[in-house]
Amino acid sequence: MTGSAALPLRERIGQINQRLKGWEAVRWIDGRPRITDVLRREVDRWGGIGAIYGVLRADPWSKVRWADGIPPERSAEAYQAVQDHIVSQGAGLPALFVEEVPHGLMALGATTLPVNLALGAGMDVELTERLAAHVAAETRARGAHVALVSGLDMLRDPRWGRAEECFGEDPALAALLVSATVRGMQGSGAPGSPIPADRIAVVAKHLAGQGAGIGGRNGSGAPIGRRELGEVHLRPAYAAVRAGVAGFMAAYNDIDGIPCSAHRELLTGTLREDWGWRGLVMADGTAIDRLRDSSPDPASAAALALVAGVDLSLWDEAFTHVEEAVDRGLVDEEVVTQAADRVLDLKRRLGMLDDAVPVDVEPLDAREFATLVDRAAAQSVVVVHDQGGLPLPASGAVALIGPNADDLDAQLGDYTPPRPADDPTSSTVHQALVARLGADAVRVARGSRHRDVLDGGMNAVRDALADADTALVVLGGTSRRSYDDEFADNGAVDAPAPDTTNGEGVDLSRLALPEAQLALLRAARDSAARVIAVVIDGRPRPLDDVIALADAVVVAPFPGTSGGAAIVDALLTGRGGGLLPATLPRADGVLPVAHDERRETARGYLDARHPAGALLGTGAPTGLTVRLAPAALTIPASSLHDGGTVTIEAEVSNTTSGEISLPVPLYGRRHELGIRPRRRSLLAVQRVRLAAGGRTLLRYELGLDELGSWKAGRPEAVRAEVVVWATPTHDPGDDGGQTVVVHISDEEGRTGWDR
Amino acid sequence: MTGSAALPLRERIGQINQRLKGWEAVRWIDGRPRITDVLRREVDRWGGIGAIYGVLRADPWSKVRWADGIPPERSAEAYQAVQDHIVSQGAGLPALFVEEVPHGLMALGATTLPVNLALGAGMDVELTERLAAHVAAETRARGAHVALVSGLDMLRDPRWGRAEECFGEDPALAALLVSATVRGMQGSGAPGSPIPADRIAVVAKHLAGQGAGIGGRNGSGAPIGRRELGEVHLRPAYAAVRAGVAGFMAAYNDIDGIPCSAHRELLTGTLREDWGWRGLVMADGTAIDRLRDSSPDPASAAALALVAGVDLSLWDEAFTHVEEAVDRGLVDEEVVTQAADRVLDLKRRLGMLDDAVPVDVEPLDAREFATLVDRAAAQSVVVVHDQGGLPLPASGAVALIGPNADDLDAQLGDYTPPRPADDPTSSTVHQALVARLGADAVRVARGSRHRDVLDGGMNAVRDALADADTALVVLGGTSRRSYDDEFADNGAVDAPAPDTTNGEGVDLSRLALPEAQLALLRAARDSAARVIAVVIDGRPRPLDDVIALADAVVVAPFPGTSGGAAIVDALLTGRGGGLLPATLPRADGVLPVAHDERRETARGYLDARHPAGALLGTGAPTGLTVRLAPAALTIPASSLHDGGTVTIEAEVSNTTSGEISLPVPLYGRRHELGIRPRRRSLLAVQRVRLAAGGRTLLRYELGLDELGSWKAGRPEAVRAEVVVWATPTHDPGDDGGQTVVVHISDEEGRTGWDR
Repeated sequence: MTGSAALPLRERIGQINQRLKGWEAVRWIDGRPRITDVLRREVDRWGGIGAIYGVLRADPWSKVRWADGIPPERSAEAYQAVQDHIVSQGAGLPALFVEEVPHGLMALGATTLPVNLALGAGMDVELTERLAAHVAAETRARGAHVALVSGLDMLRDPRWGRAEECFGEDPALAALLVSATVRGMQGSGAPGSPIPADRIAVVAKHLAGQGAGIGGRNGSGAPIGRRELGEVHLRPAYAAVRAGVAGFMAAYNDIDGIPCSAHRELLTGTLREDWGWRGLVMADGTAIDRLRDSSPDPASAAALALVAGVDLSLWDEAFTHVEEAVDRGLVDEEVVTQAADRVLDLKRRLGMLDDAVPVDVEPLDAREFATLVDRAAAQSVVVVHDQGGLPLPASGAVALIGPNADDLDAQLGDYTPPRPADDPTSSTVHQALVARLGADAVRVARGSRHRDVLDGGMNAVRDALADADTALVVLGGTSRRSYDDEFADNGAVDAPAPDTTNGEGVDLSRLALPEAQLALLRAARDSAARVIAVVIDGRPRPLDDVIALADAVVVAPFPGTSGGAAIVDALLTGRGGGLLPATLPRADGVLPVAHDERRETARGYLDARHPAGALLGTGAPTGLTVRLAPAALTIPASSLHDGGTVTIEAEVSNTTSGEISLPVPLYGRRHELGIRPRRRSLLAVQRVRLAAGGRTLLRYELGLDELGSWKAGRPEAVRAEVVVWATPTHDPGDDGGQTVVVHISDEEGRTGWDR
Repeated sequence: MTGSAALPLRERIGQINQRLKGWEAVRWIDGRPRITDVLRREVDRWGGIGAIYGVLRADPWSKVRWADGIPPERSAEAYQAVQDHIVSQGAGLPALFVEEVPHGLMALGATTLPVNLALGAGMDVELTERLAAHVAAETRARGAHVALVSGLDMLRDPRWGRAEECFGEDPALAALLVSATVRGMQGSGAPGSPIPADRIAVVAKHLAGQGAGIGGRNGSGAPIGRRELGEVHLRPAYAAVRAGVAGFMAAYNDIDGIPCSAHRELLTGTLREDWGWRGLVMADGTAIDRLRDSSPDPASAAALALVAGVDLSLWDEAFTHVEEAVDRGLVDEEVVTQAADRVLDLKRRLGMLDDAVPVDVEPLDAREFATLVDRAAAQSVVVVHDQGGLPLPASGAVALIGPNADDLDAQLGDYTPPRPADDPTSSTVHQALVARLGADAVRVARGSRHRDVLDGGMNAVRDALADADTALVVLGGTSRRSYDDEFADNGAVDAPAPDTTNGEGVDLSRLALPEAQLALLRAARDSAARVIAVVIDGRPRPLDDVIALADAVVVAPFPGTSGGAAIVDALLTGRGGGLLPATLPRADGVLPVAHDERRETARGYLDARHPAGALLGTGAPTGLTVRLAPAALTIPASSLHDGGTVTIEAEVSNTTSGEISLPVPLYGRRHELGIRPRRRSLLAVQRVRLAAGGRTLLRYELGLDELGSWKAGRPEAVRAEVVVWATPTHDPGDDGGQTVVVHISDEEGRTGWDR
């Protein structure tokens, strides 16, 4: 390949700078795209630029609206204007067009998916991959090349506002879904192979440990050790590497004192040397400038990041000082060349360095895309509690109450473009309920705001409750962003609307539902014979109070545009489609909690029951039984290392009177000499669809990823004993002996761990 | 030296087993000590025993009371009976007598000191050392050899019930005070030298990272990295090593998955190989049995601990399986011999292997001891807030309210022996206030229990408040243990009395003062012109509500037997004697917090002010000014490495109208290339006593411990820039330029970090 070494240093530096906010580089004026002086100056400065972020971004931060944004069907035109300028006025190299695609492209008119946490509830690898393929095609058809995709972050503390961007709290779940996303978006080619014209390059974010930040505060320090880092936080990244991911975004946080953007051991040692990955590392927005505490000046910060292994900046001032850094001997010019080479290499994978061809990608079948989005929404609905509350009767009056009863924005999550004015495919709970039961049967009252009381709200609630046998109370949070909000320099909301509760920049110290919302539930309980609570939210919240007041509790992590229909369908059948992707904390003040904490030797809090309420995996009806044939299996560590697997068989039966469509997870506890075991971990998961009375046999293959020991950045095969079970209880002992014990033996064939 | 290799394996194993609870080995019956069959069986089993724990222990767990315990003045006699049996019936080797001495000997009639957290408030290295010498003499005079001494644990999450056992949250503070304790208790001889007859061997606990347990739960996992471990948690242990500490107790928790009792890298790699320490590692109570999760059987657990570097067990069954472990090849016999050698070596340091000499140690001067204890109590009182509330007027009626107004037990902390019936030297706040103001001036009402309302309490409060201009409201917690409590197998309380709030086994998820206590404060505010709140507690609590309701707020970490007088003196002069040794959290739900968190790049919680309320170091009146002569100092890293120091001069002035006796801490923020700095750390501290208008010049020497970089287990000298300041504000920028910048230069004399 032709490297960047032939370019003058200035142009190489241009290739590794991604300074512009794309919506400032081109404007839609008088029916066509006009490039701006912002773009002209930047191209002049460097003789071309390597990448440009967010030409299509539309949201309150960018201030781009339907009224003034680039029309969706003319996106390619806008991109082309930018590219023409860059290629003609620079040194002839096209720029990468980078867009936010955390749950669908963040552009006008693009399809918005349920948030990652909703996909986590569905635990559906195949669906996730198919959705990703549609998203990629839609994004590439607009003209973009690179998608910034959430998926590596682990939901380890729900105080974190970005909880919704995680697939869940379990690293195996995240690894399964992030690799499905990468395969779906990039295609299943070998790592480094060309990315097909209907797919898109993925930069997966964030690397690493952002979910381990102290107190769940965004970007706070993660003082974790190598095993915790590897086992929990690197596992999804390692899976993404093997799926061929094109890039990673370095996280804001430090790991045990070292900022990720300056973390050579992580970005070079683990990623490239240990894992053998060859791709592009992008900085998070202004993250290199945020090294100001850790370096004396911008040139030094740039050198620190480059030497660590960051290749491409995002909005940073620091990377404009790279030439100075080279002059001062802070970084070798070869390191700059290597970074620029990695930018060029991605362009090559995308076919951008071939003879210029016009963008003529067609999105995949739109109807299929919509069907898959609906399915993802349906699979995100989790029945957390049901004591005779479900199904919702199909006749009779329903009082529909609560701030999320009729709030489409609150179903969507953060990083979402503005909806079109006319959006017939979307549904709130209210809209869906009216569609199913008829307008006459539904009496709706919002009742409260998300955080505070609503003037007159309680009176309206009482009116709605009058004569209604059933109260449906839809509570929760919202990541809605407003065009009046104030934003930090990286787009995180800084001063959100008073009713906003979730999303980037909205970390909370109190997760219990606000009193204003609980009051609605109490009013419903006082009045209605049947009370069903639905919690639409992007983070796990303590729900003991809600469970105590309701006959049934259903949780839906921001389920997207068709979330209303998905929820109402689940209520009418009495069946959810997913399982909790993260554990509900018992109360504020017990955080962090996770289903896979290491076992503890003491009792826990005196003033609280066990910190964990409903565990990850909660949500199946009692009539779904999973039986493992109790057995003791043995696999030599050497075989595991070489790709060997063991097979666990599970007989799944639906003894209920209705259809069940749910994930069936397998859990394990791994005993290894000298290591304190996690209480349990997710080992594998498959979905089943079973008619009433139906039964099926599932086979789970467990290999090194599932059975290995994560001493550092990847699993190793060592002698151990893994107890495997299938029901979401605290302890395999609760499972009536339905366990399989897998022995990983050593070279001498000794089984178990040290018996 | 003669090693243990000459002993049969069984006897070597006897030397490393410490299975008995001493109070079960000897009973006081009919006026003399009688050894029990428990002791006889154990000595017969092993042909002697290495150590015996708690012959004198008296507390609700041991169920030993004044009525049936060994009379204090006859302790030596009881010990002698035990020793005579062990020496005569075993192989002739005497046993180590080990006792709990966390804040004074935990035996009938022994002197109880303020808890470590109170000493942390005083920040008085010299006083801590002198107190330790007295405690050692008193303990040795009773006949004991080894003191188990808290001091290594860091208060990083106040939900932890054992917060009171920590010197505070800052590692430098803990390092200063734990090394003073070791010097005081063992004498200042070189590491490994004989321990004088009036001193006692120290086993410092716990190693390591127990304060980093997730959620502040006792013994929960500490998934921290090497820098966090070294910088925060190992620093006190490293200081103790250099003070010559005889032993360490391994902690219950795991560090990044590896239980401390099985942590070879910690107990052998860091302690012995890296630090060159030669001493004895003891397990915590039943900690090796608690390796059951991490090893398949007891013999394997014992081998794991021995190989890691544990020498002596505590109550464990596992160490009785050592011979089996040797037979099965799980541990080399040499490792057992080495552990037994370490037990013998400590006996040798204590002179126990010399010709038997009767115990004839005299305690040091009792009057001086009492004076020092009083001083420690006075120095533990911290004025957190004063808006005209102090001083307490010496005349006029005072309504004295609250659960800690007249509760001596609540002043003492956990691990405390029962008080004698007649205890004229002790004082509650009520007793001290009556002594100062006269009984007529004081109207007392308990008002509430520690956690709940008290029947009729509020009526009594209103009566007390009638006509009182001043309300003194004494709130807080208690570590009181009751003889009716239920205990876990290691003495931690399992089912405490409903009013207990603190101490081992009493981790709390809610730290805000209970509503029953806040109601007292509100009643006082409604009625009295002046409201002074005193919080006697063993952990930092969120006090914003208290500060909002009171004209002054005083905090006293369990200040001990003379705490009442110390508090009343502080109130009457308006001056505390100490500074906060740990940061107050702003609210429940923001934990953990500490003054030395790394700087963060984002805003923090949307729904809470900065997580930290009053920072460590709060408590000085505004009239105490500390001025650093602004300067830039340089020291080469090589010089720092070789013991070089820089001197910082501070002019301290008392511009108030009263005497001030307080610590004067120096804070620093260290900038090192590629490391995210802690917001600030304590660098050094000295106490001053200044008359009104007085002024003095302090000199602080900063060396490698203060200025070095803790990449792992000890400080290294690397190029850096350390900004030094002296007032307890969040940021050196707030300090009006009163900073000194210390540059640590490299070999080429380049100063700063990379400029």
